Amino acid sequence: MLPGPTIAAMAFLMGLTLRRGAGHTQRMCAAERDDPGGVTAARLTALLCAFAPGDECLGASELARRTGLPKSSVHRLLGHLVTHGLLERDGGAVRLGLKLFEIGQLAVRGRGLVDAARPYLADLREATRNTVHLAVLEGTEVVYLDIVRGPDAPALPSRIGGRFPAHATAVGKAILAHSPGSQLEAVISAGLPRVGPRTLTAPGLLRRQLTRVCEEGVAYDREESGAGVVCVASPVLDGSGRARAAVSISGWSNRVRAERVAPAVRTTALTLSRTLP
Amino acid sequence: MLPGPTIAAMAFLMGLTLRRGAGHTQRMCAAERDDPGGVTAARLTALLCAFAPGDECLGASELARRTGLPKSSVHRLLGHLVTHGLLERDGGAVRLGLKLFEIGQLAVRGRGLVDAARPYLADLREATRNTVHLAVLEGTEVVYLDIVRGPDAPALPSRIGGRFPAHATAVGKAILAHSPGSQLEAVISAGLPRVGPRTLTAPGLLRRQLTRVCEEGVAYDREESGAGVVCVASPVLDGSGRARAAVSISGWSNRVRAERVAPAVRTTALTLSRTLP
Repeated sequence: MLPGPTIAAMAFLMGLTLRRGAGHTQRMCAAERDDPGGVTAARLTALLCAFAPGDECLGASELARRTGLPKSSVHRLLGHLVTHGLLERDGGAVRLGLKLFEIGQLAVRGRGLVDAARPYLADLREATRNTVHLAVLEGTEVVYLDIVRGPDAPALPSRIGGRFPAHATAVGKAILAHSPGSQLEAVISAGLPRVGPRTLTAPGLLRRQLTRVCEEGVAYDREESGAGVVCVASPVLDGSGRARAAVSISGWSNRVRAERVAPAVRTTALTLSRTLP
Repeated sequence: MLPGPTIAAMAFLMGLTLRRGAGHTQRMCAAERDDPGGVTAARLTALLCAFAPGDECLGASELARRTGLPKSSVHRLLGHLVTHGLLERDGGAVRLGLKLFEIGQLAVRGRGLVDAARPYLADLREATRNTVHLAVLEGTEVVYLDIVRGPDAPALPSRIGGRFPAHATAVGKAILAHSPGSQLEAVISAGLPRVGPRTLTAPGLLRRQLTRVCEEGVAYDREESGAGVVCVASPVLDGSGRARAAVSISGWSNRVRAERVAPAVRTTALTLSRTLP
């Protein structure tokens, strides 16, 4: 069972996806009117991005509604996407094609990171019995590359390939504290939306906390991403001390003593920093 | 270190990818000449499919060579793909965008299968110390949805999102034996190419073996996919007894007694069949 604010966070993330879809349509109509190839590219992308977590199959009408495209265009473009295997027909509806999963697996920056990290994440999960995340920063959000769920952890709304606002997560803060200042400024400019009961929404507070994260090598999320949840993260660094990713564990805030598990998380992150290709 | 025939298998798979790319270009030139939207869709797909395992970044010239498209078209289309986040610029070259990873994660048929299977695959790896695969059938090939590598197993060329000819693998044979006959006929029509030293290349032999797999619920690959490697697989079945996927373990053929680990693999597959949503 998910606590109320976690459901609110999920709704927030769904909203992000939908708004992102709408943005696509607007950009397309304005900037690319004079370039038919560009229009097609924008429309195809909008159709692929219209699928949200939990959508197995979508019909042409629903896709037309989500993308704002005329239904006749949607029908024609779906035909092309099916021909090339990016979508698959399922009765009268379509679903994302397995080919997108295959291409998507090649898209992970340094696929080696996920492969190399996997046994270490399993060890951390084994040692703490909580849920382990591996994430990277993408703009103002983190994207989860891998998740190993633990038996003692709450059911979290995070999913592999899913996103979350960086400032509201321990992994996001661990990465931001070890990244060029411009990335933090971009996050602050995006407005620090409230996601959990204790999300840091004041820029000054976030800046001060990140200074400490940079010194200690560990970031905490105490009910900032969701009610009742605590997370502890540490950055995976490259040779120049910049964060490539972050590792975290998440558990119930009334059961996990964050400071006690921090050394385990940091050990895993340091090991990864040392061993990664 | 990979044994020679395993490297041959990798080259075979790379060839498949390249040939598939070339097929795209041909289809595009023939059937879609009268439909500019279709041409753009075909070209965009060809560009995305031109990336192979191990390619981090590709330049426009290399992409033009691989797809057979004019370099001027490649330049223009890359611009569109970058605008929409499907590709990302890296110096003068491009790489697949993280957005493709995100979309790709939504493309796994019944994403629930992978999530639900994960702890069971970890248990099987723990119990056998060999490498565990979860795969589905896609046409005449299997696609690996998840891999948990074991400490005692050889370095295999399989990767998450990667493909392998179904008839040459234990997972492929486990699925084919519990699928409609038309799927086996499609595999046989594709020619049963030799991949490992003992690949079954005779249709009659394959048919007889699959009858036994159907009776026993377990399929073996004894150096059929690569030299020195043995695999044992069992199908994950839906309510009507059809295979949705298969689970396998892979190890060194001189260390693993296939018949001894078969009950463990089948137990995991039966548990998954029972618990899957």
